[in-house]
Amino acid sequence: MAKKVAMVHGSGGQATGELIDQIFAAEFKDQTLDEMEDSALVPGAGRLALTTDSFVVTPVKFRGGDIGRLAVCGTVNDLLMRGAKPMYLTCGWILEEGTDIDLVREMAHSMAETAREAGIRIVAGDTKVIDGSIGDRTAGDAAGKFDGGILINTAGVGFVSNDINISARNACPGDAILVSGTMGDHHAAILSERMSIQTDIESDNAPLTDIVSRLVSSGLHIHTLRDITRGGLGTVLKELAESSGRTYVIEQERIPVTPKVQDFCSLLGLDPLYMGNEGKLVCILPEEEAKQALEIIRSAKYGAGAVRIGEVREAGKGEETEPGSLIMRTEIGGERLLDVLQGEGLPRIC
Amino acid sequence: MAKKVAMVHGSGGQATGELIDQIFAAEFKDQTLDEMEDSALVPGAGRLALTTDSFVVTPVKFRGGDIGRLAVCGTVNDLLMRGAKPMYLTCGWILEEGTDIDLVREMAHSMAETAREAGIRIVAGDTKVIDGSIGDRTAGDAAGKFDGGILINTAGVGFVSNDINISARNACPGDAILVSGTMGDHHAAILSERMSIQTDIESDNAPLTDIVSRLVSSGLHIHTLRDITRGGLGTVLKELAESSGRTYVIEQERIPVTPKVQDFCSLLGLDPLYMGNEGKLVCILPEEEAKQALEIIRSAKYGAGAVRIGEVREAGKGEETEPGSLIMRTEIGGERLLDVLQGEGLPRIC
Repeated sequence: MAKKVAMVHGSGGQATGELIDQIFAAEFKDQTLDEMEDSALVPGAGRLALTTDSFVVTPVKFRGGDIGRLAVCGTVNDLLMRGAKPMYLTCGWILEEGTDIDLVREMAHSMAETAREAGIRIVAGDTKVIDGSIGDRTAGDAAGKFDGGILINTAGVGFVSNDINISARNACPGDAILVSGTMGDHHAAILSERMSIQTDIESDNAPLTDIVSRLVSSGLHIHTLRDITRGGLGTVLKELAESSGRTYVIEQERIPVTPKVQDFCSLLGLDPLYMGNEGKLVCILPEEEAKQALEIIRSAKYGAGAVRIGEVREAGKGEETEPGSLIMRTEIGGERLLDVLQGEGLPRIC
Repeated sequence: MAKKVAMVHGSGGQATGELIDQIFAAEFKDQTLDEMEDSALVPGAGRLALTTDSFVVTPVKFRGGDIGRLAVCGTVNDLLMRGAKPMYLTCGWILEEGTDIDLVREMAHSMAETAREAGIRIVAGDTKVIDGSIGDRTAGDAAGKFDGGILINTAGVGFVSNDINISARNACPGDAILVSGTMGDHHAAILSERMSIQTDIESDNAPLTDIVSRLVSSGLHIHTLRDITRGGLGTVLKELAESSGRTYVIEQERIPVTPKVQDFCSLLGLDPLYMGNEGKLVCILPEEEAKQALEIIRSAKYGAGAVRIGEVREAGKGEETEPGSLIMRTEIGGERLLDVLQGEGLPRIC
């Protein structure tokens, strides 16, 4: 692999996977207990779900959210994707010298409010200050948008009932693939801030606690949950297809995108399929339960736009269906084999 | 308080305390379950200890250790200070574009080795890459020492038996104050690297698992444990004195410092009392158990230099003993009232 860290290593796509596989997974192979998913489930004292995420978004405040809200949502959502009840959050702040204290307070306030909404408690923290700048401010400064050097890491702990088994491996032929709402909102909101494009697109950053707790308590047979973040729906579904060894088929015309985000993407030549969200999930479960699941998601907070976008098939049926394939039926009737995000793909937002 | 984040807010001293009290504690006041100590103890599924720490040391490799080892030791030691058995670690990497991949691998390898030594498992991780530089490289570049832009956050989970109650609040009049070894080694090692001063001082960065597990299983009545990190022994003891509402008295001549570190400090006018370690602890327990505790610590890995440095007294006895006072009897027979680290105090290492 490469000799130097490149921005592409943080893209959430293939290069990130390479870095993780060849460095971290290799070095930590006798450490990791669990298949690599959004949270690790660890034994002892019942089952615990553990996860961590660092937040490096610029600007730290954007339409519809901020880095404080994001730092709670990202980690809470990762816990939820294993069926865990989010319980405790730790937060590590890395602040750049010269950052406005009022901005730090505002972000801490936003974290606390979001934690209350998400039903998780912030129980431990750490603060470091570094001199000099964090990252390249040129773009932000030029646009007059960059408003502070704040990085936040959060780690989360959740409890998982022994009867819950939600994993990327569990998808079965005949399952329906649902998404909880429109694609690309967060990515488009951040990009429009960074590029100083006038839009009123808002980030969808939100904790998915209500959607998941309703699904989990419904008695439906949820096979897989995954939040759609870095790399977008395309990357997430391709990774899920590979984990399950099945073939995933989605219908392009059913992928929900708001007209505003669609216009924004058309203008810039972006593909919403590979744009990140911060408050949307994929849910995979038996076809016969799909209708009821959609009703549940739509009735929950942040799930109003839920739709069915495709299905899981046995691998090997039909042409081009290697295990782990992701096929998109296009609006003009063709079929396209999709891969994870390659290289940068899009202007980066984290 | 100040309007801008200053480097002093990361010093571990008074200004850091102000930032924590006025921003984070204020915003998270309905979140925090527990008195603020090195780890939070949370209910549910037995008792869990949770903690987090970010590591921003420059250079990332130094005599006796590196940021990978440090990122495990710092968090493991914080868990141990509540009497927890360290169980699971999460790690969040923030990498600067252009960092050598081999350096990332080396640091991951160091983390894995240290985790094995410390008896903790790395179960979840996250990786972000940011463009531009992390921090001000001028000093490092000039010295030809800066070898990579790597920040690591770790969060740790430990299990605590219900019969263990180790807290800064528990110190009683008549207790002995022990330290597990010499002061200032880590700080002096980092400073000598950064200032390109030729020394062979090594960092003491180490997991204190062996010392603490021996102490906890000994049946001795351990009242308080605290690792001596940012802010040094002076800051740590003053904070402990305040938490307990007692008066702490230490003897200057008993504070252990290696001749090499003493020479280094004399040369630069530094006070080892306010210099950080990364592999030393304070242990407070009844005087009658002090001798046995010293034997246990000395027989454990990284505890060979343990000594008794002072005692806990009831506040209000004698002059100048407000609750929470820290008094040092000087080598010439005087008494000095000590405070936490004020302002920067010393060239910063984290």
